[in-house]
Amino acid sequence: MSLANLPRTIEWIGELDGFVRMIDQTKLPESLEFIACRDVACMWHAIKRLIVRGAPAIGIAAAMGAVLAVREETLSAERLLSKLDETSRYLASSRPTAVNLTWALTRMKQKARASAGEGAKAICTRLLDEAKQIRDEDEAACRAIGQNGLSLIKDGAQILTHCNAGSLATAYYGTALAPIYTAHEASRRVTVFADETRPLLQGARLTAWELQRAGVEVRVLCDGAAASLLQRGEIDLIITGADRIAANGDSANKIGTYGLAVLAKAHKVPFYVAAPSSTFDLSIPSGQSIPIEYRDEHEVRSGFGRATVPVGVPCLNPAFDVTPAQLITGIITERGIIRPVARDGIAGLLLTLTTANRTRLGR
Amino acid sequence: MSLANLPRTIEWIGELDGFVRMIDQTKLPESLEFIACRDVACMWHAIKRLIVRGAPAIGIAAAMGAVLAVREETLSAERLLSKLDETSRYLASSRPTAVNLTWALTRMKQKARASAGEGAKAICTRLLDEAKQIRDEDEAACRAIGQNGLSLIKDGAQILTHCNAGSLATAYYGTALAPIYTAHEASRRVTVFADETRPLLQGARLTAWELQRAGVEVRVLCDGAAASLLQRGEIDLIITGADRIAANGDSANKIGTYGLAVLAKAHKVPFYVAAPSSTFDLSIPSGQSIPIEYRDEHEVRSGFGRATVPVGVPCLNPAFDVTPAQLITGIITERGIIRPVARDGIAGLLLTLTTANRTRLGR
Repeated sequence: MSLANLPRTIEWIGELDGFVRMIDQTKLPESLEFIACRDVACMWHAIKRLIVRGAPAIGIAAAMGAVLAVREETLSAERLLSKLDETSRYLASSRPTAVNLTWALTRMKQKARASAGEGAKAICTRLLDEAKQIRDEDEAACRAIGQNGLSLIKDGAQILTHCNAGSLATAYYGTALAPIYTAHEASRRVTVFADETRPLLQGARLTAWELQRAGVEVRVLCDGAAASLLQRGEIDLIITGADRIAANGDSANKIGTYGLAVLAKAHKVPFYVAAPSSTFDLSIPSGQSIPIEYRDEHEVRSGFGRATVPVGVPCLNPAFDVTPAQLITGIITERGIIRPVARDGIAGLLLTLTTANRTRLGR
Repeated sequence: MSLANLPRTIEWIGELDGFVRMIDQTKLPESLEFIACRDVACMWHAIKRLIVRGAPAIGIAAAMGAVLAVREETLSAERLLSKLDETSRYLASSRPTAVNLTWALTRMKQKARASAGEGAKAICTRLLDEAKQIRDEDEAACRAIGQNGLSLIKDGAQILTHCNAGSLATAYYGTALAPIYTAHEASRRVTVFADETRPLLQGARLTAWELQRAGVEVRVLCDGAAASLLQRGEIDLIITGADRIAANGDSANKIGTYGLAVLAKAHKVPFYVAAPSSTFDLSIPSGQSIPIEYRDEHEVRSGFGRATVPVGVPCLNPAFDVTPAQLITGIITERGIIRPVARDGIAGLLLTLTTANRTRLGR
């Protein structure tokens, strides 16, 4: 078993008249099925319904969705730009918390404007190239995160993670799971404890699936059991992903992450966040300003098929929480590890980006 | 809506040739069904399969199960006592963590031995009286816990609880929920936030059901969302039950409780345990010696119909964890609140029990 068994999360198939092929993540782990999106409405629903999910992956999905929306608008550059603006608002409305989505759409709009003199058809081709470039850069960033985080993973390490910040959440290779895959490829023994991650069980369904497929030892536990593992000293390290990181390092991630960070501190276990630069949002000073998505109660009350909450009892379903920077030991990025996590270190890392990367970040 | 709408959890119906009627808690919240147990094998399975659950309730179930086992043994007192010993071992094997089960069986054996001279049939009658007495005393203890905890519940209080330590976990009225019911009956407004409590969702299915039926406002959340409620200052107080409390106050309770206690401390929110004296086990010096039940992986991987963990990936399923005494603000008992939680306070409270209570405790 190796990484070679992991299919690509999202790819553009063919030329400009092609389609987007994605793993249908709602069908895992029972079956590996792919969905083909040929128009932007299909992509909006795929993001909304979590067929594709994970901050970096939905950035790529939005970029490719934008191409689907405008590719038939080949007569007027002006109309194309206007349609791209409209499409961006539409796609951005699918999910509010992950910044990668708006980041990717901003980058697509900048590319379109920079090519405005070339005519509509040429712009479409450039947009497709840009979307593929976003995908490729994401995979490269994930592999770099893996290299940068490798020193944290000792042979025999027992690592806890929450939700899925793996290959399925990115173009390929993952964020939180990237250092684990890199350690595995370097023949270090690693055991991953995957919180199942209610309500949608991305840990049980997705993280366990991809680690098993890659040959990494993994065990699933209910979210409430993580504290007792920490209490017994069975966890060496916690790594999670992030959906948006504010300028001061406060990080939004799947609901339950904040509690884990508090528990990590109480048990003196290092707590790392892994994310590419595209997940940082320097326009937001702290986590208090990050919009938190509340999803349908249905996910809590009948997510398994059977009704598990009495009719008439309301459910709370916040999809994310915010972990304050002071609880995060370090943030593993494609440029290196930010440690300690503070405004200066973050700004410093983002400022040292090369020109190419700065363009990529839309700054 | 009032407490009058809450049916009794477990009752002996009829005379010695009668049966045990229990709410089938595996069917809630979808339907309110009762099960009739007429032999001890039925009771063993009812405890094992969580048709009846909750530390005080399974103590009562074991006592009534013992009557079912021996009631036809009316010829020889000696054979009856021997069969009662054997039955006790059998029933105690159903679930290991809650001490109330062995406590109730010890009490039944003591009653039988004290009546050994009276002949088998008379012993059976005395055992049935004793089982009914255990049930009645439990309800009285729960109501006293409610009174003793009432001062903790301010008007408008927002209270977090985990699993079900309500009426369904006891003869009637509950332990952790008892102060909430008492406050509700005293017309104080209370909102309960019920952790759904994976894997078996006793919070979503049972706590929400009984609070709704009693007219108490309740909201359900995934276990991982509790930390974010605490972070936002929305919780005034946490109350949980316990399955076994060691001599130093360390308390075993449903998996996830320990993590909540750590979070409560980090957010300076009071964390109370509510339990009757029958839940204390002075023979155990600290929580490290409490046996923790590991239940079938199936509950994690496909508990609600659909397979949510890939085939071949192991799951961890500890049913309980242990909260150290120093994280517990106080233990609410039928005799008063133990606060601070320490060996002396616990011994003091148990020693001040009246003779009647001491007999009840089997000491």
